[in-house]
Amino acid sequence: MIFMIKVATAECFTHGLIAREIHALSQGYEGEFGCDFLNNNNATPTSNDNYKPNISVICGIFVPTVSGLKNILKIDAPTPSKIIRGVKVYDENYDKQVAALMAKAVKDISEADIGIGTTAGIGRGGIAISTEELTVVTTSGFYADLTSFCSPQLLKRQKKGVKKALNIFLAILNDDMGKIMDHDDVLLQMNDVRIKD
Amino acid sequence: MIFMIKVATAECFTHGLIAREIHALSQGYEGEFGCDFLNNNNATPTSNDNYKPNISVICGIFVPTVSGLKNILKIDAPTPSKIIRGVKVYDENYDKQVAALMAKAVKDISEADIGIGTTAGIGRGGIAISTEELTVVTTSGFYADLTSFCSPQLLKRQKKGVKKALNIFLAILNDDMGKIMDHDDVLLQMNDVRIKD
Repeated sequence: MIFMIKVATAECFTHGLIAREIHALSQGYEGEFGCDFLNNNNATPTSNDNYKPNISVICGIFVPTVSGLKNILKIDAPTPSKIIRGVKVYDENYDKQVAALMAKAVKDISEADIGIGTTAGIGRGGIAISTEELTVVTTSGFYADLTSFCSPQLLKRQKKGVKKALNIFLAILNDDMGKIMDHDDVLLQMNDVRIKD
Repeated sequence: MIFMIKVATAECFTHGLIAREIHALSQGYEGEFGCDFLNNNNATPTSNDNYKPNISVICGIFVPTVSGLKNILKIDAPTPSKIIRGVKVYDENYDKQVAALMAKAVKDISEADIGIGTTAGIGRGGIAISTEELTVVTTSGFYADLTSFCSPQLLKRQKKGVKKALNIFLAILNDDMGKIMDHDDVLLQMNDVRIKD
């Protein structure tokens, strides 16, 4: 039996790029339509040009607004410290909490095996990757301030965030906890797994 | 009173790029973080470098799978003619029908003013833009076949689809029905608007 790993993302500062990248990898797209951040050698422990991981991206939700969190993900999110043209702005601590809520919510509503959540206001942002058993919470590793409208900084935080999320996602697929814990800003949360009747 | 136009997208072959573009425009992002397809002169009838339309992108959902349509958008979609690693493949007629369902569904669940839906399997694909009163249904204008894995063709269809969708979206914002009807593959559907009690 071939096991298909179902992935879903709920992304803010990464603008849906994580979903797009995993989708391009799983479908084997090439050239400008293919991966920007990953190559096949990154994605598998063995070098194989024809490698396509058995993944299906169920959905990738770009959700910069509190109303989107509420209406689409059914998250009762904390009140943001600021709202810019509908876009929520949190500090780093709240971003990490909200990213974890987003990862779990998108996994649950899409019936996926892995959920990924991202959000970043002022600080390094929050990134969370949730499986049935655990949630890995981390940051992009790069400080930026959404309220400063400094596009180069925002762009750098976004790129670092996408790379970090993909790196941890692949480490989870490869069951490589050592690689995850190599990062100095990672927190593991064990989920409340309920045994089905 | 300032009226904020709320926009939501449910995208397949356009990979969330329509939402990203409208979001970048509305937030006034610049450089590589800014718009790829639009500039401020496209977006407004008058030239004004500081123009930011009063728009909020509630969410942009990349949803290539039937299960995503069902679980996120609550759409009971037609059975695809083919499924490639979880991704639905329709012909052009079905794509247009499903795009219209996606546009209406994402508008409704996100409580947006305008919903945009896109999907493309074999053919020019379907693009739909739905307001409270009507839905504009069209195609990308460029033929491609998702099952051929021909990335340059898929990329060209995607770019043409994003531009066409943005063009019609801006025409709707500017209440310019003439510009919409200039396209030779546009169908208008009047929505069943119910007057609230």
